[in-house]
Amino acid sequence: MPPAPTAALERRHAAVRQALTARELDALLVTSLPNIVYLTNFTGSAAALLLDRDRLTLVTDFRYVTAVEALRATPWECPGLTLARVDGAYDDTIVRALTARAGVRVGFEAAHLSVSRFRWIESKLPQQSVSAPAPIATEGIVERARATKDAYEIATLREAARRLSVVARSLPEIVARGRTERAVALDVDWRVRAAGFEKAAFDTIVASGPNAALPHARPGERILTESDLVVLDFGGVYDSYCVDLTRTVSVGRADNRVREVYAAVRDAHDRAIAAVAPGRSRFEIDGAAREAMAAHGLAEAFGHGTGHGLGLEVHEDPRITRRRPGLDDDVPDEAVAAGMVFTIEPGAYLPGWGGIRIEDDVLVAADGVEILTDAPMDLIEI
Amino acid sequence: MPPAPTAALERRHAAVRQALTARELDALLVTSLPNIVYLTNFTGSAAALLLDRDRLTLVTDFRYVTAVEALRATPWECPGLTLARVDGAYDDTIVRALTARAGVRVGFEAAHLSVSRFRWIESKLPQQSVSAPAPIATEGIVERARATKDAYEIATLREAARRLSVVARSLPEIVARGRTERAVALDVDWRVRAAGFEKAAFDTIVASGPNAALPHARPGERILTESDLVVLDFGGVYDSYCVDLTRTVSVGRADNRVREVYAAVRDAHDRAIAAVAPGRSRFEIDGAAREAMAAHGLAEAFGHGTGHGLGLEVHEDPRITRRRPGLDDDVPDEAVAAGMVFTIEPGAYLPGWGGIRIEDDVLVAADGVEILTDAPMDLIEI
Repeated sequence: MPPAPTAALERRHAAVRQALTARELDALLVTSLPNIVYLTNFTGSAAALLLDRDRLTLVTDFRYVTAVEALRATPWECPGLTLARVDGAYDDTIVRALTARAGVRVGFEAAHLSVSRFRWIESKLPQQSVSAPAPIATEGIVERARATKDAYEIATLREAARRLSVVARSLPEIVARGRTERAVALDVDWRVRAAGFEKAAFDTIVASGPNAALPHARPGERILTESDLVVLDFGGVYDSYCVDLTRTVSVGRADNRVREVYAAVRDAHDRAIAAVAPGRSRFEIDGAAREAMAAHGLAEAFGHGTGHGLGLEVHEDPRITRRRPGLDDDVPDEAVAAGMVFTIEPGAYLPGWGGIRIEDDVLVAADGVEILTDAPMDLIEI
Repeated sequence: MPPAPTAALERRHAAVRQALTARELDALLVTSLPNIVYLTNFTGSAAALLLDRDRLTLVTDFRYVTAVEALRATPWECPGLTLARVDGAYDDTIVRALTARAGVRVGFEAAHLSVSRFRWIESKLPQQSVSAPAPIATEGIVERARATKDAYEIATLREAARRLSVVARSLPEIVARGRTERAVALDVDWRVRAAGFEKAAFDTIVASGPNAALPHARPGERILTESDLVVLDFGGVYDSYCVDLTRTVSVGRADNRVREVYAAVRDAHDRAIAAVAPGRSRFEIDGAAREAMAAHGLAEAFGHGTGHGLGLEVHEDPRITRRRPGLDDDVPDEAVAAGMVFTIEPGAYLPGWGGIRIEDDVLVAADGVEILTDAPMDLIEI
């Protein structure tokens, strides 16, 4: 698919500008690359963006100038964009752009600027005063807009999930006795690319036997053996958007204990998905999975969150997690909204025995939930 | 290869502790993941490390606890390591570890901590005073140690470069008329993995025809055509260490202009490598390449630096670049030293015509230079 249409970029700019107004800011210095992609369609590896009331200034270097210019006068052109070409150092160019905005209240992304860069930039700016303050820390302005996907993004994620499901359905052809985790992971990665993805969204997990008890194991030289459980967790980046899927394979016929634990995880997975609807709390969706695991006596075996948002990053808002006492007591934005896309991925990890995880990607629809991924959810026995 | 041996970790700890002493610090909060790998052999995706005079405290979550424990009582055990398991939020665990060090002068990595995290951590610490100061900003303490590789790292990088060279020598089998850039990139990535790399070190570049004039083009649907130049730039991560290599292919017999420009880039490449020796300035090595390009009338066509350090990151110190007026006037550490490993990768980019780049990886040896990569450096004609 082509990048986001100009009209979508315009709406995104308007949403961010509205958030700036609410904070009495005139401009925002954007240093998160995914946020820059979201606002401009720029997909290079280095840039900063100054978003003012009436224009956007993209700070980038000679490597990407041609690619930016190529979008001019296309249906994907970023409205109001001008280029500030870096000739020396990025932060030096940023300082010059900020200096030219004397008296303008500029926010910066505190989560995406290091102490080192911030202090350097601050030290180079003209003397600050009440009427010309130093850049002001902000949190998650663009991320909040990104959490709810627009029509272009939903179409992209739907297509990405469809393609990843094709890979998932081919797992019985890849997972086999006698193969190493590493060899299986390489085949998964090949199929992800062959399905049209630009690249893997993260390092593919193929965790077999006792390794399956480690939710983030790295594929190694272990050979798949009779009665192993194998957790396969993989994702792809399609037109800059990330999707993520997990299935569990039993090497040979599963025994009763495997069937029990699988049924518990499947129950947690289904209940969490059934809990998804506009206005539902993300803690409540997590709770649906967690309570199901507890009902099956597996509360302790489920040590991670139920899901995470998907979009330009593979882990973004909303986080479908439990409320952490003392840390999340006053968390805002806990309700999910139509247009949000996230994973549902409960798991059970039993040291020495192995593990099971089932992960799908869902969209909060106007009237409930749409499961974007489409591959059999039953235990795969080979 | 296994991870770094315990004795190497001990020497790394000693080097960092010496740097702390020089700054009148008692401890360092390490938040850069590559720095944590370097100091502990930890290879998970989330952690922080507190390095004290007499011990190291690794802050990580349940996903990685088993992997850390698995290194105990092996020849790769991290000496003096204790675990602080995150139960809630990372920064909360860090605050508790810092609070337990009241009166201790703790440095933090200003380039690897966001303003957001730093301000939150600072706000949660007990009242600060002269005898119990807030964490103190430091720059590049661990990176400086990392710039000079130890015997384990040199052996790893040598093996990685050998494996990447095998992929480079196979390029004539992959690049062919009628194939798309994307298909060629997929084959390169497959061969990088088949050569034993964990993953690509960065997004592979296959830039053909006019795209070759963009140093960081993304592989697309363009079909390789007679008389195209094709720049192929790819890398791999082997046992956590990164190597990087570029070759240029001519589709069909190269014309005189291509031969001239290739000879110029090759001359710049060879002269830069010949300039590498312990004690030589990194600006001088860059200058050798740049002067050669200028002598061939191609000064303007060479817009990027001559090279970058390789190690746990694909871009690290030393940076083999030109001195930027006003920015690098007082740069320290400009001399390269025996044990440093970096790329030499001059290029010529002519809009509308195409581009040429030749990249190899070199080690500063006691008496000069060792080229770690080993693939024919001539223009490849297919």
